[in-house]
Amino acid sequence: MSMKPMKASLAFEEAKRILLECVAPIERTERVSLLEAAGRVLAEPVTAPVDVPPFARAAMDGYAVIAENTFGVNNANPARLTLLEVIHAGEIARQAVAAGTCTQVATGSPLPAGADAVVQVENTEVEGGGPAGGRVRIYSPVYPGQNVSKRGRDLPAGREVLAPGVCLDPGKIGVLAALGLTQATVYARPSLAVLPSGNEIVPPGEPLPPGKIYDINSFTLSALIRTHGATATILPILPDRLEAVRRGLTEAAETHDLVVISGGSSVGERDVMLEAVEGLGELKFHGIAVKPGQPTLCGLIRGKLVVGMPGYPASCLINGYTLLVPVLRKLARLPACKAGPVELPMSRRCTSTLGRHQYLPVRVERGEVVPVFKESGAITSMADAEGYIEIPANVDLVEKGERVLVTFF
Amino acid sequence: MSMKPMKASLAFEEAKRILLECVAPIERTERVSLLEAAGRVLAEPVTAPVDVPPFARAAMDGYAVIAENTFGVNNANPARLTLLEVIHAGEIARQAVAAGTCTQVATGSPLPAGADAVVQVENTEVEGGGPAGGRVRIYSPVYPGQNVSKRGRDLPAGREVLAPGVCLDPGKIGVLAALGLTQATVYARPSLAVLPSGNEIVPPGEPLPPGKIYDINSFTLSALIRTHGATATILPILPDRLEAVRRGLTEAAETHDLVVISGGSSVGERDVMLEAVEGLGELKFHGIAVKPGQPTLCGLIRGKLVVGMPGYPASCLINGYTLLVPVLRKLARLPACKAGPVELPMSRRCTSTLGRHQYLPVRVERGEVVPVFKESGAITSMADAEGYIEIPANVDLVEKGERVLVTFF
Repeated sequence: MSMKPMKASLAFEEAKRILLECVAPIERTERVSLLEAAGRVLAEPVTAPVDVPPFARAAMDGYAVIAENTFGVNNANPARLTLLEVIHAGEIARQAVAAGTCTQVATGSPLPAGADAVVQVENTEVEGGGPAGGRVRIYSPVYPGQNVSKRGRDLPAGREVLAPGVCLDPGKIGVLAALGLTQATVYARPSLAVLPSGNEIVPPGEPLPPGKIYDINSFTLSALIRTHGATATILPILPDRLEAVRRGLTEAAETHDLVVISGGSSVGERDVMLEAVEGLGELKFHGIAVKPGQPTLCGLIRGKLVVGMPGYPASCLINGYTLLVPVLRKLARLPACKAGPVELPMSRRCTSTLGRHQYLPVRVERGEVVPVFKESGAITSMADAEGYIEIPANVDLVEKGERVLVTFF
Repeated sequence: MSMKPMKASLAFEEAKRILLECVAPIERTERVSLLEAAGRVLAEPVTAPVDVPPFARAAMDGYAVIAENTFGVNNANPARLTLLEVIHAGEIARQAVAAGTCTQVATGSPLPAGADAVVQVENTEVEGGGPAGGRVRIYSPVYPGQNVSKRGRDLPAGREVLAPGVCLDPGKIGVLAALGLTQATVYARPSLAVLPSGNEIVPPGEPLPPGKIYDINSFTLSALIRTHGATATILPILPDRLEAVRRGLTEAAETHDLVVISGGSSVGERDVMLEAVEGLGELKFHGIAVKPGQPTLCGLIRGKLVVGMPGYPASCLINGYTLLVPVLRKLARLPACKAGPVELPMSRRCTSTLGRHQYLPVRVERGEVVPVFKESGAITSMADAEGYIEIPANVDLVEKGERVLVTFF
């Protein structure tokens, strides 16, 4: 075995650009129930088949009137209108409102025929005791259309109300419900294969033989992938043999939208992986000038992106957040994460390596940024982290108290 | 029917405080697979049953040596050590390293017995051609422990590594995997009943009779509830009759952790709801000085919180974000949402009502805050919103260009 230390020359932003170029937004679609649609991406335009609201309706509790009958009234000189009937929400008026009459309506009641405005109950008074057949005093004038929601005002029939590509949040699901729809056509969740690699790893739950460690990366990556709109299937651990790696990669690429190789930390494994990817498809890059996460691999097999992640748990997961998530969200057609970074002061001095872009896992304590990185091999480096800061390649020192931008996971 | 306009006097923050007081964090637990554990809240302490890493291991590709054998070496005067064997990741050394010898190791390899440091491959050279039985020149000294990850350095056996109450993110799931665990005991998702109310509403998918509208609020609320760690079950629509409301509320409270009444916009419906809650349990408040969202109800039935939401879709959903979500996250034991508000300038002048705390739905366009509110009855008021701004009760005007805090949904 010859040990060739990897040359890391590719800048982080360039690596990210290449990775993003290698995936196209997913085209497969599926129908889902409105109850399962939150967070999914709409795949077809939705046009209002009906007016919403489907009829002119009262926007206030009060009395439906002909506005003209109220012009010029005031507390001293109220209009006196004959009450035709009382209608509740969901009921239809039996009689049309004519000059000198009114109908009691509740918020949301269809406006009775003939009426063109609603007087708020606060500005009225019922004469005598019972309302039926009685008279109502109107103390304030209303203009035509006042306190009325016109038919189709919210969503007129025929209008495209949601465009393909929008992510369905509770508000947009409400629009679909308002139109009477129970399902939506959405883009399928991308299916990712997580391919554990390395002779030293054993699946959790099995006994741990001497010299072996449990597979961590497949589980951190699967959790991350599922959080960002895709499905993750953990495949059997790849042994460190070229033929087995070739077979595993081919099968994974044929049956999934994207393949993530979760680890393989030693030079020998990296060499086998490199040879397999070069033989089966096209190697795009191998090695990035970023810390942690340097031994990252990118290739195309059967037209599918294959991403080889660093073997060390902290490196693998930081890479997941900074490189895999943007790729995944492009593939799933999800918008970039919105929550912007927050500027806070460093709790202590912190050094970095010149020439390598660094992602430093941190947490926020009492308004200060506390680095939690121990070493790339330590999963606890990431278990305590709430987010990360970036230290550019040309910076070797961040002073205590210096303000840095924290991106939360 | 007597129409009593509701008195809205309770301040928003006071209403929120009362609502939060009415729920206790959930106590039920369940076991879930590590693959389903993301976003769940750990319900028991996790203690490392084994050391992680389970053995001292090489932190670099290179040669395992006795550090003392390298003291004082340099490029002109290298140490010359006999190579005992080559071990890969996951393999165990057959021989102990003794004075004058070394063993080739890969990153992650268990450190052979006898060795106490690793010399990086970059600082070595193999004499002659093949490695087996040959000699290796060591050009740089190492101190004892250098380039070695000690056994238990990441997680020592017996240490409590995760405390109950932590929310399992990918990093923490990695810790569980590192310990060989395949499941975790987590708090159950709270089960919420969503109880549609109102004679005027019809479930989406059914034909729409005259004067009726589709149920929107049950779907917006269910989407919101599921996004914040709980389950939502939409129950049959409550008719506007006291006995039916009493029966519906009692059943919902008996079988769920929290009951949300999604609507009932008219005074008559509100009166029936009020009477039912007062008769079955304890009414905490009815009406808040907030816009939109004024006709909000809070009560306890069978010890369960019952929240009555405004009937108007925009009011209902804004209330969902500002009042229900904090209550829900306390119940589910989830931390408050982390992403802080972002300060941005208003795109235009905007008025508010003095004496009422206002939540205004907005979206961000070209770095400016654009109000999207049309009217409380319009679901499109919320479909275009990305977040909201708050206008305090003592402010009646926000000028164009004024900087406001946007909280994203």
